[in-house]
Formats: sequence, structure tokens, C-alpha cells
Amino acid sequence: MRLTILLFDGFTALDIVGGYEVLANVPGVETEFAAARRGPVWADTRRLALTAFKTFDEIDRTDIVYVPGGPGVTPALNDPTLLDTIQRLATGATWTVGICNGVELLGKAGLLRGKQVTTNWVARDKVASHGAIVGTRRYVRDGQLITGAGVSASIDAGLFLAGLLAGEQVARTLQLGIEYYPDPPFGNGTPDTASDFAKSIVRQFEAEGAERIRSLTAPA
Amino acid sequence: MRLTILLFDGFTALDIVGGYEVLANVPGVETEFAAARRGPVWADTRRLALTAFKTFDEIDRTDIVYVPGGPGVTPALNDPTLLDTIQRLATGATWTVGICNGVELLGKAGLLRGKQVTTNWVARDKVASHGAIVGTRRYVRDGQLITGAGVSASIDAGLFLAGLLAGEQVARTLQLGIEYYPDPPFGNGTPDTASDFAKSIVRQFEAEGAERIRSLTAPA
Repeated sequence: MRLTILLFDGFTALDIVGGYEVLANVPGVETEFAAARRGPVWADTRRLALTAFKTFDEIDRTDIVYVPGGPGVTPALNDPTLLDTIQRLATGATWTVGICNGVELLGKAGLLRGKQVTTNWVARDKVASHGAIVGTRRYVRDGQLITGAGVSASIDAGLFLAGLLAGEQVARTLQLGIEYYPDPPFGNGTPDTASDFAKSIVRQFEAEGAERIRSLTAPA
Repeated sequence: MRLTILLFDGFTALDIVGGYEVLANVPGVETEFAAARRGPVWADTRRLALTAFKTFDEIDRTDIVYVPGGPGVTPALNDPTLLDTIQRLATGATWTVGICNGVELLGKAGLLRGKQVTTNWVARDKVASHGAIVGTRRYVRDGQLITGAGVSASIDAGLFLAGLLAGEQVARTLQLGIEYYPDPPFGNGTPDTASDFAKSIVRQFEAEGAERIRSLTAPA
């Protein structure tokens, strides 16, 4: 079973790595990172790069197509090559996974009409504008579509899909492998119960995200 | 403030990215990835590579030195260049961070004698053999040393350190930014309460890890 993780400039690394660390370790899953071009693709901080070892063109089909989010989603919504690749691979895949505001890309690719989904809490209205029914859960399945809330929710979504692929016993083993028995130092909750201060800062960060990544330079 | 994340062949990606996603977004933190050589460094799956954009030699000092774990730790324990770099940078740094069995590398570098630490649950005896007092918590501070349990505990450890660097309000904002309100689909617990089946598989995976990464080939 083939897992294809799509990279684009300005992704958020944990959107990818949380799900990858689970799914790439499911027995029988062969993982590949793909982008428009081979080589390093820079994350939103411009300080981390993941390596694409395939181009979109080199991939005829896959079993699981995985689309992360990040501030790079805003420019990526106008990237026909990425959107066509998402649409093409999702059509042939058994599973389509969207994480965080990467779910917007699935919407723009025409994959969400009438679908139950979740997304980053700041992206709910944008995702709904593509015809999706947007909830607030950490991961949601609608048929062959799995969506995750923001960033670290990729871990929960990945474990959920691992359970579907390989059963609960394997998923629990993977959970132990990544020692995912979380204990957030400042407590748990929901995004909606976070402080107004935190919400206003994150909303601002999100609003300025596309401009910020344009202003940041990757190391020489 | 400078955050230097050390890469070596066969690291576990989430050991890094969980902490990175928090710490690289603390205001005023400048993040760099360093390795023995520049360019892609392959994770334990041989399907993900992070880019090192500095060599160890190019770094005179840093404020936070961050050492991940993974199956690559076993061979890395015999890598004098990496161990010297850890020892040298930790000596001048304000904070030293070890995650998962990366804490063994801190021990081998002579940094743990008499120190309170945590580590991956399978690595506790090995870490204790370096003179550390090993607990079972998800993150532990002893003076300038922060250690995290396995893999995803890098998120909790990162948030804890973010609170020390920038205060609780900023750390809570970063928590909202990465939407870290975990809800593991198969429940929470501790590694010690996982099933015997899961524990035996993970122990075997850990025991065979160094051999496994030698047998895996990175994509051409």
C-alpha cells in the first residue's frame, strides 16, 4: 500500500510528520514524498526542509494521498499543478487525507461537496465555502475521506486511519511506538476554549501567514 | 536566541518536529538544523529526509542544543564527531534538550551523571547506565537540562521549555497554534499500561532498529 505525501512551499512540518510517523510504520505501507520538483521543500519557518524524492508527474496513482496545511496553503490555492495532482490522485486512491487548512486544498480541488470534515479551527469558514459540512472534532471520516484538525491533530488522524488499515491492535502498538500518551503541560481543552489573547494572536498569525513566508528566506 | 537541532542518520522524525514546531515559533528563536555534512539526512524509515544547512564545524556555540532519538542512536553512540559536538555545544548552551533515546547520547557525552531525566520507556536502563536518575514522566527539567520521553513527548517537552523561555501565556498561544488538545482515538494511559503484545513488538522493533536502518535504502 502506497502513501503519497504532497509537499508544497510553506507547509507546516507537524501537519505532515504527526501522521507520517504513524502511517509510515503501518506494516506494508510504502511512503513517498512528492512535490512539483525534486529536492528540498521549505516549511513555513524557512528553517526546516523535507526532501521530495518524486515529482507529481512521476506518480500515476497511489493508495493514500496525504495533503498537509500551513501558511503555504493560501498561495497553493492558486497553483493548478498542485490542485490537479490532488484531484487526480484522490480520484484513484482508496484514502484521501487532509490535515489542518490543507483541507481547503481538497475543497478547492472539488472533493468536499456535501462531505463531513474537520479542519484547523481558523479555517472552518473557508472550508465550508467549498460545500463541506465542517465540524469541530479532531479527526473525521466520511467514506474514503479522512480529515484532521490543526497541526498536531495529524497524530490522532493518523492513528485513526492506522486502525482502519491494520486494526486496533496494530494502531495501539504504533501509539506505544510513538509514546503518544499526551500530557500537555498547560492542560488540555479545545481550541474554542483557548483564551481570547491566544485566539487573537493565532488568527493574526494565520491572516499574515502567506505574506510572512514570502518575506522569509531559506538558509543559503 | 539560537536553537540548534542536531541531525544524524536514522533519527525519528517526530522526536524532532514535535519540539521544533513549538520552539521555532517562540518569538526571538532562530532555528538551525546541523549535521556532520550539509544536505539531506535520512530518518529511520529511509523515506523522510530533513535538510542540514550547517555542519557541526560551522557552529561555535548555541543557546539551545536539541538532540533527538531514533534507531540511529545505537550507531551514533560510537560516533565521536557527534558526541564531541553534543558535549561542546551543551557546555556553552543555556539549555540542553534530549528527546526519546537521544537522551542516551547525552549520557554517552558525559552530561547526565547525577541528573534527573526521562527517556523513551525502552531506553530507561541504558540511560541509567550513564549515571542518570531515570523517571517515567513525559518531560523533566534538571537545571539547564530538559529531557522528554519517546517521540511525541517532544511536543510536551517543547511546550514546557517554551513556557520557561517566554512565559505561560506565549506557550499556551503556541499550544493553540499547533492545536495540541490531544484526543488519542484508542485512549490515553502510560507506556507502562500498554498491552504486553504492544510492548513486546515495540521492544523487538527497538532491539532490531540499528540493523533495520542499515538494511533500508534511501530513494535514488
